Amino acid sequence: MSDFLELVTIDQAWKIIHAHVDKTVCAEVQIPVEESMGRICARQQLVQEDYPPFTRSSVDGYAVLANDTHGASHQQPILLKISSEIRMGKASHPLPGSGWTALIHTGGMLPENADAVIMIEETEHISVDEILIYKSVSVGENVIYQGEDVHLGDILLEKGKRITEMDAGALSTSGVSEVSVYSPVRVGILSMGDELIDPQAIPLTGQIRDINSIMLAGLSRKFGAEVAAMKRVMDQPEELLEALQSLKNTCDLVFITAGSSVSTRDYTAQVIQEFGKPGVLFHGIHIRPGKPTIFARCEDQVILGLPGNPVSAYVIAWLLGMPILKRLAGESPVKYPHPVEAILDTNISSQSGRADYIPVRLQDREGVCTATPIFFKSNLIFSLARSDGLMYIPEAAAGFSAGTRVKVFIHSQSY
Amino acid sequence: MSDFLELVTIDQAWKIIHAHVDKTVCAEVQIPVEESMGRICARQQLVQEDYPPFTRSSVDGYAVLANDTHGASHQQPILLKISSEIRMGKASHPLPGSGWTALIHTGGMLPENADAVIMIEETEHISVDEILIYKSVSVGENVIYQGEDVHLGDILLEKGKRITEMDAGALSTSGVSEVSVYSPVRVGILSMGDELIDPQAIPLTGQIRDINSIMLAGLSRKFGAEVAAMKRVMDQPEELLEALQSLKNTCDLVFITAGSSVSTRDYTAQVIQEFGKPGVLFHGIHIRPGKPTIFARCEDQVILGLPGNPVSAYVIAWLLGMPILKRLAGESPVKYPHPVEAILDTNISSQSGRADYIPVRLQDREGVCTATPIFFKSNLIFSLARSDGLMYIPEAAAGFSAGTRVKVFIHSQSY
Repeated sequence: MSDFLELVTIDQAWKIIHAHVDKTVCAEVQIPVEESMGRICARQQLVQEDYPPFTRSSVDGYAVLANDTHGASHQQPILLKISSEIRMGKASHPLPGSGWTALIHTGGMLPENADAVIMIEETEHISVDEILIYKSVSVGENVIYQGEDVHLGDILLEKGKRITEMDAGALSTSGVSEVSVYSPVRVGILSMGDELIDPQAIPLTGQIRDINSIMLAGLSRKFGAEVAAMKRVMDQPEELLEALQSLKNTCDLVFITAGSSVSTRDYTAQVIQEFGKPGVLFHGIHIRPGKPTIFARCEDQVILGLPGNPVSAYVIAWLLGMPILKRLAGESPVKYPHPVEAILDTNISSQSGRADYIPVRLQDREGVCTATPIFFKSNLIFSLARSDGLMYIPEAAAGFSAGTRVKVFIHSQSY
Repeated sequence: MSDFLELVTIDQAWKIIHAHVDKTVCAEVQIPVEESMGRICARQQLVQEDYPPFTRSSVDGYAVLANDTHGASHQQPILLKISSEIRMGKASHPLPGSGWTALIHTGGMLPENADAVIMIEETEHISVDEILIYKSVSVGENVIYQGEDVHLGDILLEKGKRITEMDAGALSTSGVSEVSVYSPVRVGILSMGDELIDPQAIPLTGQIRDINSIMLAGLSRKFGAEVAAMKRVMDQPEELLEALQSLKNTCDLVFITAGSSVSTRDYTAQVIQEFGKPGVLFHGIHIRPGKPTIFARCEDQVILGLPGNPVSAYVIAWLLGMPILKRLAGESPVKYPHPVEAILDTNISSQSGRADYIPVRLQDREGVCTATPIFFKSNLIFSLARSDGLMYIPEAAAGFSAGTRVKVFIHSQSY
């Protein structure tokens, strides 16, 4: 079709995207660690204290001088005298000397002159303050030294990492209570088409509810963005230009879902091209669904022109839009979803030279994960809603036969 | 150890959990579809209108009577007269009769007496109101009939499904603007241990910051729960009982992370046992980490007793706690995470009869996803924070050798 200037492959599309979306546009903000999960770390964070902060026991047992235990066995147990119980949360006292031990709990502070812990299971009480030990331990056994996990000055969190609940735990362990993160990417969504109406309105004949904006807003929020604007735009170049201008300073990333008419496709790229430099960077990809995708950068703003069909719009927003969003958000390195593997349960054809993403349902059949493509005629949202993920057919393949081990990107993986 | 009455296998643990967590405890609430993503559908939702609401074209082209196109080819094109352009968002008019056509856009409404669409690429304009067509089409070609995607009364969304952005799109398509969902599960978190202090406090010798509560709160929220209470509890049976009582009517699921001392482990199960019926259902699992896990149901409340070690607490909260949370939330069927597959890059041993979950780092090495276990001595949070997921070693295996294809549950998969 005339409006496809030159189709790019997915690999070419990625190269272009990487070259033009190379740094975050978001400001740094300082927030409490408890609220940081899912946010992107804006500054490398160093360990502020040794951890553990003191040498501690890794088991329940008795703190000993390893030398005192030499040769102990079930045949020849060794007797030790108990000096005390080391209380959790309290500093420990030194052992009185050789031949002495102290009861210690997991995580308890090792006495300064002890050098090992013998597990409680290897000991036996023979009086209130005496035990027999049935095993020897070597220096350092069942002990975690101060700073053994992390040292003051070690890297705790890299700039660009998306903060997990485990990172939040690690930050808190090290005494960090606030962390620098990037503010969220601001997303704008423009739905073009004279036939589109508010989802809550009753359609007249020929009208269709605009659902792409709801779907794209949900997807963007799931990936940590703030939806700053959602607008429906009539099918006129002036209307599109005006809408883009209204988002100029308020949105970092704009999704445009195209109107369906041929004329729209013709002018969308042109309007974007005139909107700012460098303008349209590719228009059309060897992919299905999503062939008429437009990628552009206009000054500080990234624009992704999506097909109007909801499934096509979703697939491209997920495949290209979310990694773009992650790059703009400052995530580094950008983490891509890991596919799960499944056995395809039917033959499926594809066109060589084109990458396909097909909604599939995953099922466990006697311990084997099988993928069933959800075929559809009009490529509508219902098929996608009933799917568990998208099966990938690479460009080199002309389809797959039943029984092939395929890669499926499941919907529930968010970042 | 004396406090492990009888270890259960993971399979036995699941059976017990399924038998005792068999329905949601959450009330239904009605919310707007735009805000429903990630929530659990509380009532089966039926399609309220046919979709598409009218018979429409699936391509850009010309609406025709299929009969008029019979025999058309590049050698013998057929001439048709253009009656009109069917505007998007408007009702179409019937074709004047045989030999007539109308320009139609993708999604446009088919004229009542037309029965097929010929793609624009197969036609040629020869005057303002005449085209040649180079191909015949059959009845229904490039047409989507009213209600072909979904019919009034079809099932749109099953009770128990977690609503995705695609479901929200499907609901909106069908004119549904509000949806019944379950209110979030209320989670309570009790951290036991005399040595624990607020994460923002400066530890005295022997003290440790309480990080489990931050981590468990983050994990619970990621899975859709509301964290209703977080408390630190001193290592005394009365204190634990009092804390449990204070959560009786405000929390549906309580995580207790155990203090480290032997005595704590002894009394935790006993205090829970006395707290309500049926009480402790298992205490101890053949798993590493997480062996001393306690699962209990006390009247309406589910209690999961986790080890105090942060990695153990995290693994059990993720492995057992999150599916329990999903069941309490009303998710049905409960979706379990799908593992990704990777090639293990080192030998690793395990104990036969015990399931292991080991933090691993995933790396792409020349297109192959490899898993590198993160070894640790004290099983601390830093190793977990640096991992991409947990590698599973099943009970039947006595470890894996390098090169084995292993299953890894990645952290970024939330539901």
